[in-house]
Amino acid sequence: MDLKSYLVEQRSCIDAALELFLPNETDLPHSIHKAMRYSVFAGGKRVRPILMLAACQAVGGETGRVLPAACAMEMIHTYSLIHDDLPAMDNDDFRRGNPTNHKVFGEAIAVLAGDALLTEAFKLVSDPRHTGGCDPAALLAVIHEIAACAGSCGMVGGQVIDMESEGRHDIDLATVQYIHTHKTGALIKASVVSGAILGGAAGHQLAAITRYGEAAGLAFQIADDILDIVGTTEEIGKDTGSDEARGKATYPAVMGLASAKNEAQAMMDEALRSLECFGAEADRLRDIARYIVQRRT
Amino acid sequence: MDLKSYLVEQRSCIDAALELFLPNETDLPHSIHKAMRYSVFAGGKRVRPILMLAACQAVGGETGRVLPAACAMEMIHTYSLIHDDLPAMDNDDFRRGNPTNHKVFGEAIAVLAGDALLTEAFKLVSDPRHTGGCDPAALLAVIHEIAACAGSCGMVGGQVIDMESEGRHDIDLATVQYIHTHKTGALIKASVVSGAILGGAAGHQLAAITRYGEAAGLAFQIADDILDIVGTTEEIGKDTGSDEARGKATYPAVMGLASAKNEAQAMMDEALRSLECFGAEADRLRDIARYIVQRRT
Repeated sequence: MDLKSYLVEQRSCIDAALELFLPNETDLPHSIHKAMRYSVFAGGKRVRPILMLAACQAVGGETGRVLPAACAMEMIHTYSLIHDDLPAMDNDDFRRGNPTNHKVFGEAIAVLAGDALLTEAFKLVSDPRHTGGCDPAALLAVIHEIAACAGSCGMVGGQVIDMESEGRHDIDLATVQYIHTHKTGALIKASVVSGAILGGAAGHQLAAITRYGEAAGLAFQIADDILDIVGTTEEIGKDTGSDEARGKATYPAVMGLASAKNEAQAMMDEALRSLECFGAEADRLRDIARYIVQRRT
Repeated sequence: MDLKSYLVEQRSCIDAALELFLPNETDLPHSIHKAMRYSVFAGGKRVRPILMLAACQAVGGETGRVLPAACAMEMIHTYSLIHDDLPAMDNDDFRRGNPTNHKVFGEAIAVLAGDALLTEAFKLVSDPRHTGGCDPAALLAVIHEIAACAGSCGMVGGQVIDMESEGRHDIDLATVQYIHTHKTGALIKASVVSGAILGGAAGHQLAAITRYGEAAGLAFQIADDILDIVGTTEEIGKDTGSDEARGKATYPAVMGLASAKNEAQAMMDEALRSLECFGAEADRLRDIARYIVQRRT
């Protein structure tokens, strides 16, 4: 199966699982569950859950067992988008061509929908109905990895420095690196590490997958910065050039577009190198690393 | 030791543990860690963590093991206060006599500090450095209990219905009950249930503690409603009568002050009755149930 068909298939598998795992709109209170589902099903590519499944496959694990954790990761990613879009933060009215959560449901429900999705993620991974077949110690390790990467020393920390850097003209490469490795990279790393843990990875495999996740996560965000400049509005579903207009700290802004492209490529190469201890079972991780840098959306 | 001295001692023990478990202000990014600590150390009574320790003691467990989960519960309680105070929600400028988080750090950091505290709670309970001596299956059960009670079908759900009910004149008792059992009761129930699980409770003990938590949680919130009417501003650190001014759904509003006082008493009696299978080892839980209804702050 080619990568495109694989991604479509995996995405629909994740979507079906999310449909199953999320509270229903008919559950009380209706408004919060509508708001949670609105943003979860707003056209996400499911990159993080797909990476988690692929990492599990690379270490020879059963991918079916990883679905709850994979969906939990997508819930956390979605909560972060809802809160980042709030008027007090990035103040975005549209995401992927659709009105943002607070534009549809109001600011209060948007804050609470984000809170609820973050909470639901940990409920799901610890739910005996869904993860009862997994080793409890492995589940705890996954919960710890996800929480550490999503918290104030991970993703939230990246968003803080991103906001504090906006509009400043003295941002250096180290700061942009901090933002990218934390705001985007941390969850991508947590995704592959969690997949590997639940797949029963040996120590050297876990170390290799961790290096892969760090490199691929950084490559992903640099590619995003580049797309904001060279992509079309139609392709990426929001106005291009928005980073520059806001004075956002990006790779192209601190090192120029050509160097940023080289850097994304270098990170992709590093991701591939880190997988040298694996055979064909890691081919999907390799394909995804290439796709991350070459994608147009 | 009388209850007052016991509460002071337990509170200082919880405060010391929170000091240890929370990221330092010197950790990057400084702003978020300052904001997290500002609200955690803003004078909370630590009712939920103290209840967790007391429930552990009631079933004969080692209370030292429960400290991380107890602190996690206080972090979740604190996050909920920070987000509830936001301009888009209750728009409160003061809490316990101090400026609220967003008044000091701005709205964006306040949203993120809440997010980070919620995330940190799950990181802490799953951290092998702190809970490595506990049974992994028990820890997973605690994580699931906490997440279920804090999420969209628990505390967050209660806040949603509370907001949606504000200013309406047709609120009935069932709605007020829903708000109280979810917004406040759920975390109190989760606290005692978690303490009992980590203390190694037998099935019938866990059931009894669960009933205790439900009754005590409701008693606590009815007492809060009553305090908002009969307390002085100096005692409770915020303007009294604020619930009525906002058209908040409260017990006194739907059944009158005298009936509300009777109901709080009835819930306290039910909490005490549910502990009949325990001996003196549950005396602290009994004392706390009485204190919850009789307190002046």
